[in-house]
Amino acid sequence: MLPDKVQKIYQQAGADALFLECDFLRKYLTDFYSTDGYVLVTENLCTLVADPRYYEAARRKFRNSRIRVVEGGYKEAMEFAAPYHKLGIPYPFVSAAALRKYEEAGHETLDCMPALASFMVVKDAGELSRIQKACEIAEDAFNALLGQIREGMTETDVAALLEYYMRSLGASGTSFDTICAFGANASMPHYETGTTKLRFGDPVLIDFGCKFEGYCSDITRSFLFGDDKRHDEFKKLHSIVLLAHELAKERIASGMTGKEADAVARNYFRSKGIDDKFTHSLGHGVGLRIHEAPYLSPKGEEVLQDGMVFSIEPGLYIPGEIGIRIEDTVTLSGGRVTSLMKKTSRKALIIL
Amino acid sequence: MLPDKVQKIYQQAGADALFLECDFLRKYLTDFYSTDGYVLVTENLCTLVADPRYYEAARRKFRNSRIRVVEGGYKEAMEFAAPYHKLGIPYPFVSAAALRKYEEAGHETLDCMPALASFMVVKDAGELSRIQKACEIAEDAFNALLGQIREGMTETDVAALLEYYMRSLGASGTSFDTICAFGANASMPHYETGTTKLRFGDPVLIDFGCKFEGYCSDITRSFLFGDDKRHDEFKKLHSIVLLAHELAKERIASGMTGKEADAVARNYFRSKGIDDKFTHSLGHGVGLRIHEAPYLSPKGEEVLQDGMVFSIEPGLYIPGEIGIRIEDTVTLSGGRVTSLMKKTSRKALIIL
Repeated sequence: MLPDKVQKIYQQAGADALFLECDFLRKYLTDFYSTDGYVLVTENLCTLVADPRYYEAARRKFRNSRIRVVEGGYKEAMEFAAPYHKLGIPYPFVSAAALRKYEEAGHETLDCMPALASFMVVKDAGELSRIQKACEIAEDAFNALLGQIREGMTETDVAALLEYYMRSLGASGTSFDTICAFGANASMPHYETGTTKLRFGDPVLIDFGCKFEGYCSDITRSFLFGDDKRHDEFKKLHSIVLLAHELAKERIASGMTGKEADAVARNYFRSKGIDDKFTHSLGHGVGLRIHEAPYLSPKGEEVLQDGMVFSIEPGLYIPGEIGIRIEDTVTLSGGRVTSLMKKTSRKALIIL
Repeated sequence: MLPDKVQKIYQQAGADALFLECDFLRKYLTDFYSTDGYVLVTENLCTLVADPRYYEAARRKFRNSRIRVVEGGYKEAMEFAAPYHKLGIPYPFVSAAALRKYEEAGHETLDCMPALASFMVVKDAGELSRIQKACEIAEDAFNALLGQIREGMTETDVAALLEYYMRSLGASGTSFDTICAFGANASMPHYETGTTKLRFGDPVLIDFGCKFEGYCSDITRSFLFGDDKRHDEFKKLHSIVLLAHELAKERIASGMTGKEADAVARNYFRSKGIDDKFTHSLGHGVGLRIHEAPYLSPKGEEVLQDGMVFSIEPGLYIPGEIGIRIEDTVTLSGGRVTSLMKKTSRKALIIL
């Protein structure tokens, strides 16, 4: 017997067997994390092939479960797969080298990622609670950081301290490279954190997140480090971005497409004549990976549903001058947006 | 005209054009890092296709160089590739989904990773100096950590602090998830850092590393947190591991195969009747990735050469009881091993 979710994915994929090498997909199907291993799903059996480093822990976890654990590596996994002609493999997460090996072993392959993704995009209660925890850690770390930011610290100093707090609060690591940008550096949406020193009055943009039990959080805050009275433009644009952010939370609803959701913020910016300054999409799904479906972008065709988790991150950028982005990780429940971020201010707060 | 290294790789690969999507390979060929982008190498031209986030920085970097920068994404890159029938792509680092797209666009593909790897395995002066810096940061962070370890700290607390020091000292991040194991936890070579609290007398194993300008370091130290006089077995095994470590550094030489290098430590353990407790291989290459060629293992056929960088990490493990590993990142020069780790003690130092 297969676990229910695995059964449904297997049926939808339409292969004789699913063969998964990729770590986060193995984690998704079995809820067991290992850096290496193989999961083989056939009509009646879900088998985890674990090497000696993980075998003992896997055997204990899956005692009395519907998942069978066997000790071995690639060779053993391929032996289990041998009787099944048509292998479902996740094309975007399988290397061309691996694909060639399956083909050489006589298998026909098909892409099972669409079947997997259609389930992964809606989070269950266990997944939601981990993402919620990853969000709380990120917010608690940010609040701890605010009390410690000092003039003269570099962007890297600030990022290092923030990451330290997240790790101390139980995160297993960051969900992506922390972006910490002072002053005009924030005008590059994917700025590489560097050695610029913080000065009184500087705008600060921090885009960060962490992982908890495999699941990610994603958050951005923009604020001023002290008020030198020379950042009226920042304050004005910040209030516009914040309004776009709040509007998106209020109006985005289950049943909309990603494109319609993106348009909520984009149309608002357009009404102000500054949609050309919103140079990226409104949001992306967040789960075991930091960027996944659904995509809230001008091209997003996927229909939003309850249980999806995604970022809402409108921003405005004037090259070489200003960059502002306000981002929460949110979920849809009862048709409406609920933010998973409840502990930090989104205001252009001025800290000293 | 192609840059010299790129020219040689192109010639060895034997394709009409090389087409690279993967971040660390783009970085290797151009020394420019971006999360996304494409590098196309043809007989006379190396083209970097950069999206708007990176275009400006790339254009500035490659002004007056042999690398051409154009703005665009996948579509533009594929247009540049269109005239070239046989595309060299790195099979282990290209997804099956991407491979299918190249095939659908009418390209024949071949694996150019062997050509790339044959150059990447020997580091040039610029690469060596970055790995050296990544090693120095790791060691400085470790020494700073030693002064701060206290009874009652969890494994995660210690890992978080170590990572904070590395980040503060200029690392862009860790080169892999830090392993910090107290007591018997160290007996699992790939232990997942957890909430175990440090007690007086505990053995501690920390396996960590960081990245500097894309390049990795890798180091492991094992020691006692105070001497409760009940860890004679630890002390005995530690001295054996340290001897194996020193022996490997002394005897490994250019011209040996990875297998012969591995045997230096393995045979020493065998002479003590405990080679069954050395459950992994002696080392692996370190560069833009934390695990790459050459492999110093019982199966390693590659011949070691001057300019290669790899780990030397003998270890002994008694399940549920003891785990000890002593690891340096080293290089070969003038035929002999030079350690890139000069700042930390390898002894079973007892700290309090």
